[in-house]
Amino acid sequence: MPRPLYFDCDTGIDDSVALAYLLSSPEVELVGIGTVSGNVSSATAAENTIGLLALAGRTDIRVAVGAHDHLAHPFHGGAPHVHGDNGLGGVELPPTDVRPVAGDAADLLLRLSHEFAGELEVLTVGPLTNLAIALQRDPSLPERIAAVTTMGGAALAPGNITPVAEANIHNDPEAAALHLAAGWPVVLVPLDATMEHTFEEEHRDALVASGDPLAVAVGGMLDHYFDFYVDVYGRRSSALHDPLAAAIAVGDAVATVAPAVPVVVDTTDGPGRGQTVCDLRGQRLGPVDWEGATVRVVLEVAEPLAPRLLERILARAGSAAR
Amino acid sequence: MPRPLYFDCDTGIDDSVALAYLLSSPEVELVGIGTVSGNVSSATAAENTIGLLALAGRTDIRVAVGAHDHLAHPFHGGAPHVHGDNGLGGVELPPTDVRPVAGDAADLLLRLSHEFAGELEVLTVGPLTNLAIALQRDPSLPERIAAVTTMGGAALAPGNITPVAEANIHNDPEAAALHLAAGWPVVLVPLDATMEHTFEEEHRDALVASGDPLAVAVGGMLDHYFDFYVDVYGRRSSALHDPLAAAIAVGDAVATVAPAVPVVVDTTDGPGRGQTVCDLRGQRLGPVDWEGATVRVVLEVAEPLAPRLLERILARAGSAAR
Repeated sequence: MPRPLYFDCDTGIDDSVALAYLLSSPEVELVGIGTVSGNVSSATAAENTIGLLALAGRTDIRVAVGAHDHLAHPFHGGAPHVHGDNGLGGVELPPTDVRPVAGDAADLLLRLSHEFAGELEVLTVGPLTNLAIALQRDPSLPERIAAVTTMGGAALAPGNITPVAEANIHNDPEAAALHLAAGWPVVLVPLDATMEHTFEEEHRDALVASGDPLAVAVGGMLDHYFDFYVDVYGRRSSALHDPLAAAIAVGDAVATVAPAVPVVVDTTDGPGRGQTVCDLRGQRLGPVDWEGATVRVVLEVAEPLAPRLLERILARAGSAAR
Repeated sequence: MPRPLYFDCDTGIDDSVALAYLLSSPEVELVGIGTVSGNVSSATAAENTIGLLALAGRTDIRVAVGAHDHLAHPFHGGAPHVHGDNGLGGVELPPTDVRPVAGDAADLLLRLSHEFAGELEVLTVGPLTNLAIALQRDPSLPERIAAVTTMGGAALAPGNITPVAEANIHNDPEAAALHLAAGWPVVLVPLDATMEHTFEEEHRDALVASGDPLAVAVGGMLDHYFDFYVDVYGRRSSALHDPLAAAIAVGDAVATVAPAVPVVVDTTDGPGRGQTVCDLRGQRLGPVDWEGATVRVVLEVAEPLAPRLLERILARAGSAAR
């Protein structure tokens, strides 16, 4: 039996890769998707998500538009220099007449938490606004959630939006702080891990060559994303931020270094705003879990992710074509 | 001709190792020492420093007592669990009747900056309070200083006093902020570099066996310091924080990775207080200097420091014995 999964995203190019991967993973069933403003607005993210689901023939999956603005400040307009103006690197998806469900993403998450009480798992790859709103509306939410995996933050690695802050957390530090202090078991997948996993030209070529509509669309977006990363990696390629968190949530990728430690989000207006302050002192001799720490910080996933991702996405594409 | 050096310290066990090393280094002449509260109070630090200088027969070197309290808060009482109650791991130095000079450490630094205008180099291994006071008293100070080397901060490594802050900076973030923004050329030697260099039992044994009063005293202190580091390194040994900064200031140790980048000190009251926020984004392909950046952050010194330190300290001891 696949485990029920709620996916919270700001689709987004690497969100799209993650979604294609999740749709290809038999371990989980996507029972609902909420969108949040981040890479693009929550409305655009929903449109993109529905367009991708339509390409996969999966418009049965409920999509809810989540928060447009963040807890303490308005949406800043997204990251068009990274993800393109439409969030998909300029790739135009066929129009659909599928609409988001009524109610916002926090509503959907709360509803699903009752439908699948005790079993529902949560994967977030955008700012934590929807989760924070859901926690505010119903503080008992964590009791009904089995696991939360969150792509976000930077522990010892540099940030990507400030010297010490990663974009998902920096976009809504107040929400991230609520989320990480809520006491539910969180696996945090920060830049320390995600920057070490990349898609290369060969992987993109394989997606495009598959002929599968979803895989081809994702491959097309990566063309744009690869350009952004030239300054980072010195070659056309892309970090696999959201896909790594997805693979960890699925149980397909295994964290090789992931201590459970105190994590605090910097919500000041100082130079550390949006930093995930992880207490990694005293871990020179190997990962050590802190008693009572509810956040596990993934610092390393040793096995390369790209081949696994590609294999699954192409396997679904192959079976879809039959 | 040795280069004139002002040394600002909070003596302290690793400060003592650094002092013994500086007294053994022909490249520099210690023309003045200022003390600051940190490991111990500034008054105790001066007493310790004078006691060590007496052991080396160098009471000609002027010592000034610097700031007791920090810019924005009072002295917190030091780190007796690390450095012992007297700062020297309980080692008692012979009493001397040498007194500190009149005036405080900032006065001494300013006076020396005129005496050796354009040539004076500065090495700090404690909180930056004295430097900040000197900069406030005379903002033209940097014009007369050739180089500043500062042990402090943590760039990508964990902190040692909070998850992200190193003790020297955390003890007086406001002072560190003034110092690092003053525009003079600073070589910052953070935990990223210093934690990778240690003294081991063999080094301590050699100091004790030398029979030289200063070396024996330093070896005695390290017995205490080694105990503290068991939880860090898993064995009795000690980080060489201050000695590494000293060796870099002397020119004896060479930084193998040390980009010049923007560095901002977190002076908020948030979880990042005292952090040296170093912008190390975009350095995956190798160290890159930022135009206009005045702070060089030492991330790696490849060659082991301990043998060099020991060799110099023992060489001075040997020549003192003749």
